[in-house]
Amino acid sequence: MSDRVQIFEVVARDGFQNEARFVETADKIALIDALSRTGVAKIEATAFVSPRAVPNMRDAAQVLAGVTRAPGVVYSALAPNLRGAANAVAAAAHEVNVVLSASESHNWSNVRMTCADSLADLTRIVDACSLTGTPVNISIATAFGCPFEGPVAPSRVLDFVKRCAQAGAAGVTLADTIGVANPVQVERLVAAAMQILGPVPLTLHFHDTRGLGLANVYAAWRAGARRFDASLGGIGGCPFAPGATGNICTEDTVHMFAEMGVETGVDLEMVIDLARTLPQLLGHDTFGRLTKVRSRAQAECRTAAAQ
Amino acid sequence: MSDRVQIFEVVARDGFQNEARFVETADKIALIDALSRTGVAKIEATAFVSPRAVPNMRDAAQVLAGVTRAPGVVYSALAPNLRGAANAVAAAAHEVNVVLSASESHNWSNVRMTCADSLADLTRIVDACSLTGTPVNISIATAFGCPFEGPVAPSRVLDFVKRCAQAGAAGVTLADTIGVANPVQVERLVAAAMQILGPVPLTLHFHDTRGLGLANVYAAWRAGARRFDASLGGIGGCPFAPGATGNICTEDTVHMFAEMGVETGVDLEMVIDLARTLPQLLGHDTFGRLTKVRSRAQAECRTAAAQ
Repeated sequence: MSDRVQIFEVVARDGFQNEARFVETADKIALIDALSRTGVAKIEATAFVSPRAVPNMRDAAQVLAGVTRAPGVVYSALAPNLRGAANAVAAAAHEVNVVLSASESHNWSNVRMTCADSLADLTRIVDACSLTGTPVNISIATAFGCPFEGPVAPSRVLDFVKRCAQAGAAGVTLADTIGVANPVQVERLVAAAMQILGPVPLTLHFHDTRGLGLANVYAAWRAGARRFDASLGGIGGCPFAPGATGNICTEDTVHMFAEMGVETGVDLEMVIDLARTLPQLLGHDTFGRLTKVRSRAQAECRTAAAQ
Repeated sequence: MSDRVQIFEVVARDGFQNEARFVETADKIALIDALSRTGVAKIEATAFVSPRAVPNMRDAAQVLAGVTRAPGVVYSALAPNLRGAANAVAAAAHEVNVVLSASESHNWSNVRMTCADSLADLTRIVDACSLTGTPVNISIATAFGCPFEGPVAPSRVLDFVKRCAQAGAAGVTLADTIGVANPVQVERLVAAAMQILGPVPLTLHFHDTRGLGLANVYAAWRAGARRFDASLGGIGGCPFAPGATGNICTEDTVHMFAEMGVETGVDLEMVIDLARTLPQLLGHDTFGRLTKVRSRAQAECRTAAAQ
């Protein structure tokens, strides 16, 4: 059981936040409810951020209120600061995912705070959330590289990891916000972070910008990581990171682990079916490979049947 | 130096063989000549196969005759049988790459021979090529799975590897013809194959059909492999394997190794520039991520400059 991999679905947050078209609240809720039945361990349902800065997240409270909580699924919400965390708790999020960046310039661009201020806030956020018993996961963005500053020193990232644990984080996520991580770097940083974190669970959050998403998942898994964020259809990206593109794709990630003989508990056919509903919802094509393989196979069958 | 990775460029063979439009001989020669200057260790320039079955390879002899041989680059040609090998030698290929499949039904579909006949031919081909001192690399197709039969037993693949070595192969390639390999399988099979092969070099040939191409490269590299086939722009695929799609992309593979701090000797900017000429040559878009990242970055710069 300890070797089972957990998939955390982020399409409703990281996926939708970067969409130009507003995704209707009812559509968000319907998708989250459908995802609840696929076997994903956690769903990042929304973000409590500035509605002006991220218009697609302006219905955060309604989304959380409208979702049918399925047993065994953790409904998480992202928050950049204490106010966002308080709103997430008020909306009965099971978990608050606080984000700060390892690099100063991305932290400023993303949450308008210095890293020192964000770090100082962590304890206050954890304490506030503990009043309702809400666990806080802390996501460290730009942990593998920054769109403004380039490489980020591993020692700095690991220092952030230590401070997150000290602040009382229930979990820590290392995020490759702009898809610049490479597998060797991932194996090293994951091993070092897990050593610091001990029993505090580590999650990896990769983007597939340069095609290394699943290579990085494999590298992290090899180093011992068992928790991965992924987005249905591989959509997503940070609106405040130039060049950011889609997350690793849920269905492709689930498929890789299935082929590797690693249990995720996620029903591959269900996530493929859901991924295939995205283009109509979003008005554009998505990035998953499995959906394309299936579509091609079905087209070949139709051609064969017509002959 | 022994840890340097060698990139074998297969766009002119595996890439073009699957294109509907005939690529003009002069264009093939120009591309191969340009690739010769990028630092790739080997170029699979063409295939000596039935011109009816694979029309884009019908100019095999002219291509090899027209190419300017750059020092340090091996110009290889694929052949499915003794006749093809003889033609490749006559055209002064530096190396003949003989292909057979680990699965009966794909071998039949691809080269119209039983596996037993293909295996028996190996010694004859190696002996014939040795008359001119031409080394023979043997590629084992469907080594990680077959489009018709599904999984292929590793014991069968490893038996083929042993027979290739016994036949006097100068090198052996394990090919994931339809992109179904997974990293765990790759690590195991590569480690076992290298043990059998000893000093005979092993090459890996991956397709990226399900997005696992670079994950598989990383897994193979981790198991000790240092030679990889790749195709500019990620184009290619076997015309006789349903569902086959593009090879792993040269520029994305070179980029991954560069980021990992592993030397390939290939100039990344040169291969990106060449990959960006492919859509015009082929009449369709290609699959590389790096070219898209660069195009997007340039578009952003132009937008910024215009503001």
